[in-house]
Amino acid sequence: MDLDAVFRARSVAVIGASAKRGSIGYVIVKNLKDRFRGKVYPVNPKYKEILGLKCYPRIGDVDGEVDVAVIAVPAKTVIPVVSECGRKGVKVAIVISGGFREIGGEGVRLEEMLVEEARKHGIRIIGPNCMGIYDTNTGLDTFFLPTIRCGRPKNGHISFISQSGAFAAAVMDQLTFLGLGMSRCISYGNASDIDETDLIAFLREDDKTRVITMYIETAKGGRKFIEEAYRTTRVKPIIAIKAGRTSRGVSAVLSHTGSMAGSDRIFNSAFKQAGVIRATNFQEMFDMAKALSSQPTPKGNRILVITDGGGAGVMTVDACEMSGLKVPELPDDVKHELKRHFPPYASVHNPIDLTGSVTDDWYGIALEVAGSIDLIDGIIVNVLFQPPRLTLKLADVVADYAREADKPVVCCLWGGRVAESMAKDLESQGVPTYPTPERAVKAMWALYTYGRIRER
Amino acid sequence: MDLDAVFRARSVAVIGASAKRGSIGYVIVKNLKDRFRGKVYPVNPKYKEILGLKCYPRIGDVDGEVDVAVIAVPAKTVIPVVSECGRKGVKVAIVISGGFREIGGEGVRLEEMLVEEARKHGIRIIGPNCMGIYDTNTGLDTFFLPTIRCGRPKNGHISFISQSGAFAAAVMDQLTFLGLGMSRCISYGNASDIDETDLIAFLREDDKTRVITMYIETAKGGRKFIEEAYRTTRVKPIIAIKAGRTSRGVSAVLSHTGSMAGSDRIFNSAFKQAGVIRATNFQEMFDMAKALSSQPTPKGNRILVITDGGGAGVMTVDACEMSGLKVPELPDDVKHELKRHFPPYASVHNPIDLTGSVTDDWYGIALEVAGSIDLIDGIIVNVLFQPPRLTLKLADVVADYAREADKPVVCCLWGGRVAESMAKDLESQGVPTYPTPERAVKAMWALYTYGRIRER
Repeated sequence: MDLDAVFRARSVAVIGASAKRGSIGYVIVKNLKDRFRGKVYPVNPKYKEILGLKCYPRIGDVDGEVDVAVIAVPAKTVIPVVSECGRKGVKVAIVISGGFREIGGEGVRLEEMLVEEARKHGIRIIGPNCMGIYDTNTGLDTFFLPTIRCGRPKNGHISFISQSGAFAAAVMDQLTFLGLGMSRCISYGNASDIDETDLIAFLREDDKTRVITMYIETAKGGRKFIEEAYRTTRVKPIIAIKAGRTSRGVSAVLSHTGSMAGSDRIFNSAFKQAGVIRATNFQEMFDMAKALSSQPTPKGNRILVITDGGGAGVMTVDACEMSGLKVPELPDDVKHELKRHFPPYASVHNPIDLTGSVTDDWYGIALEVAGSIDLIDGIIVNVLFQPPRLTLKLADVVADYAREADKPVVCCLWGGRVAESMAKDLESQGVPTYPTPERAVKAMWALYTYGRIRER
Repeated sequence: MDLDAVFRARSVAVIGASAKRGSIGYVIVKNLKDRFRGKVYPVNPKYKEILGLKCYPRIGDVDGEVDVAVIAVPAKTVIPVVSECGRKGVKVAIVISGGFREIGGEGVRLEEMLVEEARKHGIRIIGPNCMGIYDTNTGLDTFFLPTIRCGRPKNGHISFISQSGAFAAAVMDQLTFLGLGMSRCISYGNASDIDETDLIAFLREDDKTRVITMYIETAKGGRKFIEEAYRTTRVKPIIAIKAGRTSRGVSAVLSHTGSMAGSDRIFNSAFKQAGVIRATNFQEMFDMAKALSSQPTPKGNRILVITDGGGAGVMTVDACEMSGLKVPELPDDVKHELKRHFPPYASVHNPIDLTGSVTDDWYGIALEVAGSIDLIDGIIVNVLFQPPRLTLKLADVVADYAREADKPVVCCLWGGRVAESMAKDLESQGVPTYPTPERAVKAMWALYTYGRIRER
């Protein structure tokens, strides 16, 4: 597939490379040099060398093969550059340059000509007017922003595709800050050639991607998008943010992108047909994605809630019931067994309330005894850290259970510094954690919902 | 008022003080010694001295006046201790000890006797079965948890009252971690005497409290609670979390507290009558509280949205419209004026989109020109930090405007480390910030809603 050339690239040329610190052509070369695990060819007739790399006057002068060309030259010179790339045998050009359809008028015509020229040479185009690719698997990085403005997340299993370059950068920065991993991030800009439908089709087959997340303003694909998304969600989940949910929002999209957002009802129905889960903001998107990339889907919607604070248990039950998850009463034999282990003031109903006398082991016992029965499809573990007998080893107790369990486990951790420390530990062991019951429950809901989508 | 004795206490006795590291009686003495700006009298016949403080055999032996007694002795000895406190002239006893109503049976009777004894001596009781008070104004701190488990937030304007001691501790820890301030935190446990109604009445008159937040499981006050809350919300906002919103949640409350949660519909109606704003979790509660404690209420629901990323603007508009806030089109003369300052590709509609070419000053211009017109009641400022010309000085631009404005300003900051850094700066200057448009909009909604409540 054409996109293999990008995501398995062994060599990248940067056309419009620059030795001028802080310029786009400089930052791209620097980031590639620092991160890309392949050959980097700066191209610019003005320089002999950039950052210690040999610089070529034209792409035709490069002596090796070039898989990908990153083009960052003024709009009007992009087309001749693409022709040269064609003659060189480049497979994909990532056109960073702006000044095309997004400026209207002449820009629209220029973009049409760009696509025509690329087709003639069998080159696929990402962009124009985009940030391009950040790929933690190969180190390909065409985001022309320094890491102080746009952090680079570590390797992970979630890929993100975005029409908006600004959002792609903000998301990368946020995931870095949160310590979350990412697989491939693609800002595809004007989508003159490669669009969200192509990207979804690629990511479906991509074994480095477990969950596809996307930000979409307009979908040009229509029927084709729904078909590809439908095929994809049978294999892995897609979570999408579509802005413009209200009539005022839709008119704001119009003034932002110059194109109609399309009725929100049409999008909702398309997402539903295709099995795409919709998120309202990035926090919710990555809350769900982190559960979907690390936990199995539950067989049903029956949730066990464990807590060491009664109120936390009640709030979790409320959130479950309000989102369509059930918190069933436990069978008598299970309650009887739990009673053998815990003092009389602990509650052996569901939620199981281990109270302030709790120890790390009590959580382990509750998980084993009540979590493992067939009646329970998924488990939400609440931890308040005030009980004096709890230690940070609790993370291992929960993670060890989750690792062996054939059902999902998510945690809600209440508090500040201790909670944060346990969250890091649990997440590094693949157990997703959240600071509020609503967010933990939303993650469990996403697991349940995706399980049903996949079974269609 | 009786509660003045607690919140303006000049002297505290700890009955059940201990020299045993880690014990409840030790931690309380240590925290008081470290923080309380008044006299501390440890009481325990077993010791001559605790942590360098003279220890008294009985409270009657203390030579000075004692405003508050903290009682942390076994349940069955609490009543004689209260009698001694009465003879000493103590005004309020904070009974930390458990083993009363919450254990049922005999404990219920013991609690009744405790209250009777206290009435006989004119002593008011906080608790039993509580954490007591953490007061950043006087340093009174009866929370028997070390700071590693339960951080102590800095001084601020938000007070929190909670039936649940575990939640009070978790909230303190979380606010500390988030760098948010707090005024007075009260865990009132079994509410044998002083209850949420008394506390609200006190906090209404308290000039150290701008916003009252509360976690409530059951309200014994009924009519009286509604009346006091109604009087209070004319003066300052109350935000409440009431767990048990669903039928399964209500049955979980029953097994947690042994008392009926009361129909959620009844609570909702009581809150509505009283003008209490309801939150679903602590994150939402403090999101709203931080806006209400720092920003004026808007005169109406017409919001200006400023952004440097089109998608962020659209998502903010969506969130506004979905919560009942309006994002009106700007008048032609204002758009005309904005056009004079910004390039043609910036959008001068509402949301104003300053695009990736934005500078710090552009935000200032948009705020002055469009924010200051009568048509606009409140302003939500979105910042994505990727545009290269933005600097951290933007925080001053926004904060300077907000300080002079007679309308509320809240910010949504997109991204990771830079966003966090600007958030700290803005919040230290009194401008509340949020990481998602929904949370920023919810804060603005709370300001609008409280404005209407106060005007009743």
